[in-house]
Amino acid sequence: MKYISILGSTGSIGTQTLDVVRGHSDKIKVSAITGNNNIELLRDQILEFHPELCCVMNKENASLLKEMLPPHIKTEIMAGMEGLVEAAEFDKSEIIVTAVSGMIGLKPTLAAIKKGKTIALANKETLVTGGSYIIDMAKKHNADIIPVDSEHSAIFQCLMANHKKSVNKIVLTASGGPFRGKNTEFLKNVTVEDALKHPNWSMGRKITVDSATLMNKGLEVIEAKFLFDVEPEQIEVVVHPQSIIHSGIEFCDHSTLAQLGLPDMRVPIQFALFYPDRVPNSYKSLSLFEIGNLTFEKPDMEVFKCLYLAFDSLKVGGTMPAVLNASNEVCVNLFLNKKISFLEIGNLNEKVMQLHIPKKIDCLETILEAEEFAVKTIKSILKYN
Amino acid sequence: MKYISILGSTGSIGTQTLDVVRGHSDKIKVSAITGNNNIELLRDQILEFHPELCCVMNKENASLLKEMLPPHIKTEIMAGMEGLVEAAEFDKSEIIVTAVSGMIGLKPTLAAIKKGKTIALANKETLVTGGSYIIDMAKKHNADIIPVDSEHSAIFQCLMANHKKSVNKIVLTASGGPFRGKNTEFLKNVTVEDALKHPNWSMGRKITVDSATLMNKGLEVIEAKFLFDVEPEQIEVVVHPQSIIHSGIEFCDHSTLAQLGLPDMRVPIQFALFYPDRVPNSYKSLSLFEIGNLTFEKPDMEVFKCLYLAFDSLKVGGTMPAVLNASNEVCVNLFLNKKISFLEIGNLNEKVMQLHIPKKIDCLETILEAEEFAVKTIKSILKYN
Repeated sequence: MKYISILGSTGSIGTQTLDVVRGHSDKIKVSAITGNNNIELLRDQILEFHPELCCVMNKENASLLKEMLPPHIKTEIMAGMEGLVEAAEFDKSEIIVTAVSGMIGLKPTLAAIKKGKTIALANKETLVTGGSYIIDMAKKHNADIIPVDSEHSAIFQCLMANHKKSVNKIVLTASGGPFRGKNTEFLKNVTVEDALKHPNWSMGRKITVDSATLMNKGLEVIEAKFLFDVEPEQIEVVVHPQSIIHSGIEFCDHSTLAQLGLPDMRVPIQFALFYPDRVPNSYKSLSLFEIGNLTFEKPDMEVFKCLYLAFDSLKVGGTMPAVLNASNEVCVNLFLNKKISFLEIGNLNEKVMQLHIPKKIDCLETILEAEEFAVKTIKSILKYN
Repeated sequence: MKYISILGSTGSIGTQTLDVVRGHSDKIKVSAITGNNNIELLRDQILEFHPELCCVMNKENASLLKEMLPPHIKTEIMAGMEGLVEAAEFDKSEIIVTAVSGMIGLKPTLAAIKKGKTIALANKETLVTGGSYIIDMAKKHNADIIPVDSEHSAIFQCLMANHKKSVNKIVLTASGGPFRGKNTEFLKNVTVEDALKHPNWSMGRKITVDSATLMNKGLEVIEAKFLFDVEPEQIEVVVHPQSIIHSGIEFCDHSTLAQLGLPDMRVPIQFALFYPDRVPNSYKSLSLFEIGNLTFEKPDMEVFKCLYLAFDSLKVGGTMPAVLNASNEVCVNLFLNKKISFLEIGNLNEKVMQLHIPKKIDCLETILEAEEFAVKTIKSILKYN
């Protein structure tokens, strides 16, 4: 059980903090709350959360609140800055949520820091006015400062390590390729040259065609499942034509982290070579206001069948993804050599999958056999067509 | 010095990997490269990077390449899958970049995994076809798999811890408030009611007015400096009206991480209460394709003077941010009570800053004195106006 004090429990952050507590009453308990004018709400909060201490800044309001409480309530009522500091220093409280607005928050926050409490910092004035003095005091007294402001929380979250087990869903972005938004009718007549015109990334021919069919994204869905140990249902593909958000994770607490950058493969390559260090380079910096606009669309898995097949192969499991991949490799080659049409890539892949009885993979040979099956099956389908 | 093998050095990822090596020749050396048809490029790469081994899949091409090299070059030339596996297992190489395209990448990647090498994985087929078998083998042989694909690298980066010292710039997003895009002429006549209409967040009156003047963002700039130990020049404010990207960090390698979510303060509050754990909740999930569109603008610091003043106060340092904050607190109160106009908030703050001689902060009293100075100065300015 975590015990917390909330300085400013009747304000916007204070009431939302209590809503969080409400959702986790098995894990968090409120030891102390403070307010100023809204004594009706303070009374309701006392009746619901049973804090040991409640401080009201205004002394007259403190007296009024005392009279408003039924006799069985044991919450101690204090008044003024003395009470605010008492709530901040409250022995039982491990975390102090400093949700009071204005300069008044400085003194109790500093008091809590001196007691080595963890500060859930929502009072802006503490750091704005105290700056490095506050940071030095926090270091000296071993008090953690966890920002609550959405902006600083965002930055703080970008620095921390996260666990795979906290992943709710993986958001895999896709440029959509050269045929984004097109329908099946349009795709009937597209040429190899059309398919090789990728809007954002300069890549090899195979992967560029895979981008046009969305099979490339399908293969990435399969990879993501194994790399990050998630279920297919936890992977969401989002079409994002600008390729600035390269993908992200929504965690179980509904906070999403994403990695962004200009489309330059040297960044992830360098990252992989130096991991876990980040090393400076001379590549171009991302300026969001220069980019101006990021858009997102739902992929059409009926038109872009290969993406659907990838999800499907994952659900089946075993050698099925290997068969899809091998089939696709052959089909793209046939397409590049103008032996089959663009839409036949997806249709042939689907047929090969239908004809395959998947096996569990326990050695390299099983994978190679599955691939051989795909190659032979396509040959025989094409022969008898 | 890190030694690497690049399987597929003539392809798109291969050549970009060599470009990364070129930029860090003091830290990375190439021990082995492999290619297939482009032997002119392989020759150039050998002459530039002097690998100990070069494998050419095609045997005839391997013989041709040997003849193309000047006699002083000591690079061993091998051919076929045997050579590819040799490059993957190369003793000296700590990292194997698997940048070959297609099913051919599977065997050498598995060979490298069995030697416990770090795999910079760019070959999609390895995991697509091998799946959990590959992951199990990597675990068994203690081989790290670092994805190179921009999408998986993005997800991988969202899981890892980052150091403050790797921060290049902090990207602080701002909704822009109710007066986004307006000019000084327009702002002359805005009322308290206008200023209290915030587009995205429901907050207290003081902070809502601060959002309208952008002082709120200015205060956050000041906080960010102290929380994350950066210089004012490293903080970039970006107006982002949808408030979905809550802020982010560009690291020194030009990779940006950002935290996203629907505007719901309970998420960062819960995060602060449970840090470092993430705990499930029932809040709404972010769907980027439901949002559809994210936009970004450069803030106008001439019209929204308070944001400029915040940066300025940070550059001056000492008690200057405390004076600005106190002055602003008084001004917003005067504005809410209809004693001064909206634009006078910024103008008065500026005057108070001009009259203040900043001091170093070494105790709470210095801060309180600075605040007292601001309060008194505003009183006297208003008295004699």
